[in-house]
Amino acid sequence: MQRKIYLDMHSREEAQRLFWSRFGQRTTEAETIPSRLARGRVTAAPVTARFSSPSFHSAAMDGLAVRAEDTFGASDDTPRTLRIDTGEAVPVNTGYPLPPDKNAVIMIENVLLADDGATGVIRAPVYPWQHVRKVGEDIVATELLFPTGHQLRPADIGALLTGGCATVRVRKRPKVVIIPTGSELVRLEDYPDAPPAGKTIESNATVLAGLAEQAGAEVAITPIISDDFATISRHLQATVASEADLVIINAGSSAGSADYTVRIIEQLGEILVHGITIMPGKPTILGVIDHKPVVGIPGYPVSAIIAMEQLVVPLLARMQGVHVDPPATVQAVLAKDLPSRSGIEEFRRMIVGRIDDRFVAVPLKQGAGAITTLTRANGMLRIAAASEGEIHGREVTIELLVPRPQAERTILCTGSHDLCLDVLGDLLRKQDPAYPLASTHVGSLGGLMALKQGMCHLAGSHLLDPMDGSYNTSYIRKHLAGRDIRAVTLVHREQGFIVPKGNPKNIASIHDLFGEGIRFINRQAGSGTRVLLDYELERHHLDPDAILGYDQDEYTHMAVAVAVLSGKVDTGLGIKSAANALGLDFVPLVEERYDLLLPGELFDTPMIQAVLTVINTADFRQAVEALGGYSTRETGRLVER
Amino acid sequence: MQRKIYLDMHSREEAQRLFWSRFGQRTTEAETIPSRLARGRVTAAPVTARFSSPSFHSAAMDGLAVRAEDTFGASDDTPRTLRIDTGEAVPVNTGYPLPPDKNAVIMIENVLLADDGATGVIRAPVYPWQHVRKVGEDIVATELLFPTGHQLRPADIGALLTGGCATVRVRKRPKVVIIPTGSELVRLEDYPDAPPAGKTIESNATVLAGLAEQAGAEVAITPIISDDFATISRHLQATVASEADLVIINAGSSAGSADYTVRIIEQLGEILVHGITIMPGKPTILGVIDHKPVVGIPGYPVSAIIAMEQLVVPLLARMQGVHVDPPATVQAVLAKDLPSRSGIEEFRRMIVGRIDDRFVAVPLKQGAGAITTLTRANGMLRIAAASEGEIHGREVTIELLVPRPQAERTILCTGSHDLCLDVLGDLLRKQDPAYPLASTHVGSLGGLMALKQGMCHLAGSHLLDPMDGSYNTSYIRKHLAGRDIRAVTLVHREQGFIVPKGNPKNIASIHDLFGEGIRFINRQAGSGTRVLLDYELERHHLDPDAILGYDQDEYTHMAVAVAVLSGKVDTGLGIKSAANALGLDFVPLVEERYDLLLPGELFDTPMIQAVLTVINTADFRQAVEALGGYSTRETGRLVER
Repeated sequence: MQRKIYLDMHSREEAQRLFWSRFGQRTTEAETIPSRLARGRVTAAPVTARFSSPSFHSAAMDGLAVRAEDTFGASDDTPRTLRIDTGEAVPVNTGYPLPPDKNAVIMIENVLLADDGATGVIRAPVYPWQHVRKVGEDIVATELLFPTGHQLRPADIGALLTGGCATVRVRKRPKVVIIPTGSELVRLEDYPDAPPAGKTIESNATVLAGLAEQAGAEVAITPIISDDFATISRHLQATVASEADLVIINAGSSAGSADYTVRIIEQLGEILVHGITIMPGKPTILGVIDHKPVVGIPGYPVSAIIAMEQLVVPLLARMQGVHVDPPATVQAVLAKDLPSRSGIEEFRRMIVGRIDDRFVAVPLKQGAGAITTLTRANGMLRIAAASEGEIHGREVTIELLVPRPQAERTILCTGSHDLCLDVLGDLLRKQDPAYPLASTHVGSLGGLMALKQGMCHLAGSHLLDPMDGSYNTSYIRKHLAGRDIRAVTLVHREQGFIVPKGNPKNIASIHDLFGEGIRFINRQAGSGTRVLLDYELERHHLDPDAILGYDQDEYTHMAVAVAVLSGKVDTGLGIKSAANALGLDFVPLVEERYDLLLPGELFDTPMIQAVLTVINTADFRQAVEALGGYSTRETGRLVER
Repeated sequence: MQRKIYLDMHSREEAQRLFWSRFGQRTTEAETIPSRLARGRVTAAPVTARFSSPSFHSAAMDGLAVRAEDTFGASDDTPRTLRIDTGEAVPVNTGYPLPPDKNAVIMIENVLLADDGATGVIRAPVYPWQHVRKVGEDIVATELLFPTGHQLRPADIGALLTGGCATVRVRKRPKVVIIPTGSELVRLEDYPDAPPAGKTIESNATVLAGLAEQAGAEVAITPIISDDFATISRHLQATVASEADLVIINAGSSAGSADYTVRIIEQLGEILVHGITIMPGKPTILGVIDHKPVVGIPGYPVSAIIAMEQLVVPLLARMQGVHVDPPATVQAVLAKDLPSRSGIEEFRRMIVGRIDDRFVAVPLKQGAGAITTLTRANGMLRIAAASEGEIHGREVTIELLVPRPQAERTILCTGSHDLCLDVLGDLLRKQDPAYPLASTHVGSLGGLMALKQGMCHLAGSHLLDPMDGSYNTSYIRKHLAGRDIRAVTLVHREQGFIVPKGNPKNIASIHDLFGEGIRFINRQAGSGTRVLLDYELERHHLDPDAILGYDQDEYTHMAVAVAVLSGKVDTGLGIKSAANALGLDFVPLVEERYDLLLPGELFDTPMIQAVLTVINTADFRQAVEALGGYSTRETGRLVER
């Protein structure tokens, strides 16, 4: 196990400066391309018009071309008759050339034409050059149409063509070559049914290519290269010698026994930076071989994307001579404490939504390995290296990953987890694409707290009151006293023991959790399912501590089901739909009610009304029933208070 | 001249409702495509994962895989030795499968390896599942990855591949066919040297295609069709019968004698709307043939773009099931009165910049024919149909055509016009792409007023004080008393009479303006050039009213030069570089100084410093001298106050 830990970590700012100062001033070459194909490209030189537009005096209106002097004196009292038959007035359509002896156009609406069209009567004069588009009114030949460094939009192409520029000098697209490395990687297309044991599907190369293409680059992806020093080295050398303007190796940038990237770049060229104090993204390598930038991008998908966006995308813009603006931001109230290690700049993926007049930011989980933390996020919080984190309720600056209006219309749903929320989110988008439903899971009690603090629009809850068998109402009364909280029943659902197919350990009741060697997985404190388990244990006078795994918990039904599926545990308490989804067996324990709770003051907003509309559709009920383990007999009912 | 004036004009809102309600609910069909090619596409169904990720318990760190239980009790005082040679601890790299009998990973940084690698010593325990990425930690098979209607970004493609989705169901791109019509139209490629007399270069089709492509459509453009009823009708029928989802005819949508579009659509199908109370864009036609939307887009380039963006682009989004957000806006102070006809919703192209802490919006000219009003604009002001206009100094809402930061860094330059400003703007972008220089022209005195009102960053000025021969200083003292205004000399330049090549009318001095039949073109009141002319006339005791054309004016030197070139006039007063640009001759009258004036409080801003840096480069001086008619002997000098 050869190791070379990054000894000289750089901050992001230092790394950017070191890297960009080396390459950032060097733009790509210029090339001449047809203007019709130039949308999105960046001008490499000032563009001047070759033709004037209009290139002749032309009629700006449909009407009669005249000498303005011939119309002077016309009025309601002294209408004037113009001779069309003699050419005193000449009918013209918009855009037609003005006859050489004419200098104005009368709008056809202002002419009373004789039936034979030989004459026209007017009751007002026109002034010279009225309703005439004069030569060069839009564009004068030789004038500057666009300065250097202008990114061409559709209308700009119109100006180029109109100005006689059939071709335009633009910066070449930077050529990026991406080399995926890793003996553990396989292509999904080669294993459509499942990756071989111990193998991982390569996905970063396509993601990095997409980011580079968005930044204006041309991208090639090489085949996957195994973790072999000589092969990678040979391959990298050949790529650098090719037409590439920038080479990306992914991954092997860390410090494992098969992480050759840093040694290879060192051997072929020079390492500028190895290790950046960012998280995710720490094991990034910035190097140079034969004067070309070579970047070792980390293997974890979120690390890869953040390293790419922080270091490479801005460089690609600079290579095209384009200024890079910082991302748009909003100020948002943080829904959770976020401790962070000092000395590391942390990038936390967030879901942002607007509740009343403020934005709320809900952090997603932290792992660099979870691509879904990025696909679900609509914002990013940077916790500065000097900071030890941010605290719940503080106003923080969120960089938006989507247009601001999209963040504004995002529905924040939290509390208890249920698979029906996905059905709801999907049907909601089908009914009205305006409202993305973003759900996070903190358990039923956590949802009540979020409601209390104004941190969510909706909270899923299934809190049983053992005293009277009611759900949620007594908890709302206790924790949200004085607040107008409405509860809408989403579903009734079966809770029970999720067990492997065939139920090999013969779990039949709560007593079986105490069987010899039975490994259990719990749900987190504050979740309705945990409340249910504890209630059932107490009701049967059973000792929780005697359950193997009572102190191990997961946050969702699906995570419990996965623990069972993977053989990590023998059973856990959860909903039937989660067992069904993974083809597991299920031992029912109780049926319970699952409600969506929401603040009364939001009830009449279009956002919430859109949600309630969907819940009351037959489509929703059918889709839910199809999951199994649900009853929709009270779905959509407003719970009486 | 057959006419059918639009009798039933619709408001934009009515037109949108009528049109979209007919087609807006109908999405395009779904198709299955490779996920790798799906960036930017919109999901047509919920996408669920086929594989879990990770698909096996894997090491989250480089290190030793162990049973956590074997590490309990390890501490600084009681270090524990793990046997690697016997398999008690197994070296693993990040991403490697966890051996089946292990349940945790110790980071390699926390292991003291023996030289022979046979053992490792640890000084702290790990807990079960520490540094392990558990099965399904990121994605659980069967879980929802994306709801219907999600537009796929690069990271999303990563989630699709990781989740085992090699293909994805997406909406087909809407197919748009654009039919350019007009006997006056030619293709630039067929006439690279100049359009034939009376002909116009077709450019709208490519612009409309670009807008449709940006909105996700696939676009085909047919050849140009002449203004012939039967030909257009046959062509339109064939196009509708093809695979097109939406057909655009451009133009013939107005009411001229060759405007057949409305009659043809009426004959083949149904007219929903003919004429919308917007300007530009009034003669828009919305129709339906064989259940397909057919749009008659007006011919003026700005009308075409506005009609396309208001009516068609949102429909293309709806066809893909995507929500359309309104454009981003800023509040800005209006730099000029903008009267507007009541009953018409007017779209005014604007240049927006930020001065100190407020945005300022400067209107560009109005004409629907001037594509450059759109290419130069970075914002749009809508004047509501009910409004009679907006007034100078009022705060108005500007829809941004560029990202907000780009508007924030736009330099507003106004006042007098000089060709050197284009050179400055180009070199500025080359030096620092951050700062677009947007210049408008209101004459020197207009520039002083703009400075006074905080409506510009820079104002070009060449106001001669006849008393002492000085430039600008006395005017600043008079009009901007008490204000800290700095003046930086940009150039000295030659003013004189612009005359046709060969000077056929033998203009030699100011006295020749009074020659028999000599047609003159003036500059607007308040321009430095007008001040100069009036001063020269007074000095020679000449009567302005005796000059033919003294009361006709233009706003720029280039417009004067064009008037001479087109034969509209025999001469006008202007700068030599304008004559040079159009290959005209020039009769020098005086040399004058042209300064850039700016508020002292902006002097040290990066924006202004960037401008001053460029002015002081040799590149700038060389480029200016190359235009002819300039001296740079004092260029960049701060004028003493």
